[in-house]
Amino acid sequence: MSLTSSTPEDAARSASLSARSLAILPVTARNEALSIIHQALSKAKLEILEANANDMTLAMQASNSGTLPQSLVKRLDLSKPGKYEDMLQGILDVRSLPDPLNQTTLRTRLDDNLELERVSCPIGVLLIIFEARPEVIANIAALAIKSGNAAILKGGKESSHSFEAISRVISSALDETQVLNQAIQLVKTRNVIDELLQLDRYIDLVIPRGGNELVKYVKEHTRIPVLGHADGLCSVYLHKDADPEIAKRVVVDSKCDYPAACNAAETLLVHADVLETILPGVAEALLARGVSLICDPQSKSALQKQLPSSSAALLQEATETDYDTEFLDLKIAIKTVPATSDSSSPDASLDLAISHINAHSSSHTDSIVTTDQNAAEYFMNAVDSAGVYWNASTRFADGMRYGFGTEVGISTNKIHSRGPVGLEGLTIYKYKIRGQGQVAGEYGAGKKAYKHEKLQ
Amino acid sequence: MSLTSSTPEDAARSASLSARSLAILPVTARNEALSIIHQALSKAKLEILEANANDMTLAMQASNSGTLPQSLVKRLDLSKPGKYEDMLQGILDVRSLPDPLNQTTLRTRLDDNLELERVSCPIGVLLIIFEARPEVIANIAALAIKSGNAAILKGGKESSHSFEAISRVISSALDETQVLNQAIQLVKTRNVIDELLQLDRYIDLVIPRGGNELVKYVKEHTRIPVLGHADGLCSVYLHKDADPEIAKRVVVDSKCDYPAACNAAETLLVHADVLETILPGVAEALLARGVSLICDPQSKSALQKQLPSSSAALLQEATETDYDTEFLDLKIAIKTVPATSDSSSPDASLDLAISHINAHSSSHTDSIVTTDQNAAEYFMNAVDSAGVYWNASTRFADGMRYGFGTEVGISTNKIHSRGPVGLEGLTIYKYKIRGQGQVAGEYGAGKKAYKHEKLQ
Repeated sequence: MSLTSSTPEDAARSASLSARSLAILPVTARNEALSIIHQALSKAKLEILEANANDMTLAMQASNSGTLPQSLVKRLDLSKPGKYEDMLQGILDVRSLPDPLNQTTLRTRLDDNLELERVSCPIGVLLIIFEARPEVIANIAALAIKSGNAAILKGGKESSHSFEAISRVISSALDETQVLNQAIQLVKTRNVIDELLQLDRYIDLVIPRGGNELVKYVKEHTRIPVLGHADGLCSVYLHKDADPEIAKRVVVDSKCDYPAACNAAETLLVHADVLETILPGVAEALLARGVSLICDPQSKSALQKQLPSSSAALLQEATETDYDTEFLDLKIAIKTVPATSDSSSPDASLDLAISHINAHSSSHTDSIVTTDQNAAEYFMNAVDSAGVYWNASTRFADGMRYGFGTEVGISTNKIHSRGPVGLEGLTIYKYKIRGQGQVAGEYGAGKKAYKHEKLQ
Repeated sequence: MSLTSSTPEDAARSASLSARSLAILPVTARNEALSIIHQALSKAKLEILEANANDMTLAMQASNSGTLPQSLVKRLDLSKPGKYEDMLQGILDVRSLPDPLNQTTLRTRLDDNLELERVSCPIGVLLIIFEARPEVIANIAALAIKSGNAAILKGGKESSHSFEAISRVISSALDETQVLNQAIQLVKTRNVIDELLQLDRYIDLVIPRGGNELVKYVKEHTRIPVLGHADGLCSVYLHKDADPEIAKRVVVDSKCDYPAACNAAETLLVHADVLETILPGVAEALLARGVSLICDPQSKSALQKQLPSSSAALLQEATETDYDTEFLDLKIAIKTVPATSDSSSPDASLDLAISHINAHSSSHTDSIVTTDQNAAEYFMNAVDSAGVYWNASTRFADGMRYGFGTEVGISTNKIHSRGPVGLEGLTIYKYKIRGQGQVAGEYGAGKKAYKHEKLQ
C-alpha cells in the first residue's frame, strides 16, 4: 500500500499501471498476500486499537458538540467486542473463497477449431471513499487483491488515525508479497474527492461507503460508474394470512436488530384484514423494544381499540413523507393496505402492497410475511428490489450472511451488481476466441454456417 | 408500440409502469409476441422498403452535398440483398433462444429452511438512441420483449421514414399480444435527447447506436448508465512465429471484410523479426484490396526492400496520432514491435505489444497471430479488451457470430456487460430468501451459525 502524499492523479495512474500485473497474478500469490496481511494485522492489534481510540475520543467530542451524528461514532469503534476479530476473520474468509478470476462462464464451438470462451477477469481500478468504519480498509484490500483489482482508498477525517495505522501495517505487509505496493493506494490528502471523481481514464468503479449524503454527492459528481446505495428504505408487508408469530419475529428483527443499518425496515405495510388480529401483537413487541409507531389513521384506530391505553397513547400520526423516510432509528411507519377485490386481479391487495413498495422503497430489500406460497412467489417476482424475502428478516441482506465472506457494500443499481457485493461483483469478463486463421468473411448467407455448439 | 407525440417524460413514465407487467409475463407470452411481430413485418416488407427508399433518396442527396457521411448512407439501406430477411430471422433467432429470465445462478442453504437464491430478472426501462440502421428497431424490440424490458426508441432523422413504417407495423402487431403497447415507446419528437437523458428516475440504461459523436455526447450528458462503445480501435499483432498464411488471412479479413464496422482492425503491430518475412505477403494482400498502408519508419523501409517498386511507392508515413485513429476506411496503421530481450520478462517484445494495445486500443477486440500457445494465452490474459483472439479475425466480435441471436450493441464498459450484448446483457438479478420466520439476530458469535451450503 502506497502511503502516498502525491497527487490524486499520480495515485490513480500508478494504481492503473500496477492493476495490469495484479490482474495476471495466480490465485496462490493473491491468497499468499492475504495471509501475510492477516498475520500483520493480528500482530498490530494493540497499536491499531490505540489509533482507533484517538479517533473515538475526537468523534465523541464532535458528537457531544453536535457536529457528528451518533450513528457515525458507533461505526467508528473498532474496540467493540469481536469487531477486530471479525475484521481479521473476514480476510481469511475471503482467502478461502474460490478464485473469482479465470472462471469460464460460457463456451461455444463457433466452428471446427474455432472456440469462443467467456472468462471472468478483474475490472481494473476501484476507488473506495469511506467515512467511518475503519475495518472497511482491511475488507476492501482483501477483496480487491483476491479479485485482482487495484484500489485507491480515500478515508474520512473521522477515521484518519485508524486509517493511517491500518494502512501502514498493510503497506509494509505487501512488501513481502508479489502484489505490487502501488496496487493499493491510500490517499490521505484532504479535499481531493472531486479531483479523484474526475479521473475516469484511470478509475473504473467508485464505491462510496458512508451515509446518504456522501453517496448522493459521489453519484452527482462523477462519470465513473458508482456501486452502492444512497438509501436503505426497506419494508415488511404482513399479508392477510400471515402467521402471527412469524410476523412478530420478522418485524421486530427487521426494525430492532440494528436500526442504523441500511437493511433495517422503515415501513410496515399491513393488510386491512389483520389490523386488529396480527398487528396488535407486532405493535406491542415493537413498543416493548422502544420503537415509535407512526401510523396511518386506519392502523392507528385499530391499535387504539386493541392495545392497553398506556400503549395506545404512544401512537403517532403519519404524514405522507414518513413513507419515504429512512429513519435509521427506532421508528417505523405503518400503512394499511386496503382489503379490496378487483375482478381483473387475483389479489388486488397484494398488488397494492407491491405498488407501494415499488414506488416508495429504495429497491434494497423487502419482505412479505404470508402462509400462502403463491402470494409469496408473486410478491418476490413483482417487487423490483435487490432482495425480496418470504418470512425472513430484511436484516439478512448482507454479504457475510449470504456466504460471500465479506462485502464491499450493498448495491441498489440496476446493472452489474445488485444486493451485497462480494468478490464476484468485482469482476467482469472477456471473450476469448481460439482459432486457426478463420475469418468472418468465410461465413454468412451462401457460405459456411456457424455451428454454435454449446460446450461443457 | 406507442407512436407517441406526448412529452419524453410521459413516454418514460408510461414505459416504466408497463415494465412491471412485462417483467412478470411468462416466456410463452413473450415468445408469442415475437411471432406476431415477425409475421407482421414479413407481410409489410414492401411498404417498409418503400419508406426506406424515401430515406435513402434524401440520404443520398445529403451525402452528395457533403452533409452526411457515406458510411451512414450504407447503414441506412434496408434493400441490400438479404438484409430485410436477416432482420426477420433475427426476431426468430431471439424467440428460439432460452429464456434469459428466472434463471437461478446461485442457491445457498443459509440454514435449515432458510434458502437464498439468485434469479435473473429484467433491468427495467431501456432507452435506445440510434442514427441510421433502421433494422435496429426490430432487433431491439425483439430483445427488449424477450428479456422483459420496456424500451424507449429514439430514431435519427436520417431513418425517420423507415423508423415510422416499422414502428407502425410493430405497434399494431403488439395490440394482438399480451405485451402492453406502452412497453415499447417510440419518440418521434425532435430535439428531445437531452430531456430523455435527464429521466434517470424512469430509465435504467441507455444504449446509443451510432457513431462516435453520438456515443460521446450521450456519455457526457447523462447520469443513466450507458452501454456501448464510442470507438472501435482494434489491433492485430503478428508475433515472431506467426504462420504466414494465417497472418495474411486474419489481417486482410480484419481490415477489409467491412472497414466501416467497429470490429475492423485499424492497427497492425508487427514483431521486428518478421518485418521482411511475413509482413511483405500481408502488405501485398492488403494493397491488392486497396488498403492504404500507413507505416512507421522500420516497417516502411522493410517493405520498400521487399515489395515491387510500384507497391512500395504506395506506402505512407505514420504519425503518432495514426495509432489512436479509428479510420473506418481502407487504411491501416503499421507499427513495429522491437525485438528486445529483457531478463525480467520471458518475452519482452510480447509485453511491448500488449502495452501498446492497452494504451492505444479502445478495449474492443484485439487479436494475436502466433504458433506459440503460451504467447497466445499470455496475450489473451494480459490484454484488457472485451475480445481477445488467437489466430482469428477481429470481425468475429458480433452477437450473431457469438451465437447470441442478435445484439443491442458491443460494449467496451468495464462493468455489467462487455463485448457483444445479447439477451443476457439486458438482465440483472435479484436475491430471494425463503424462510420460516428466521431473524438475523439469532445468528452470530455465540449464537446460531450459518450453514452456507451450496445447493445444486
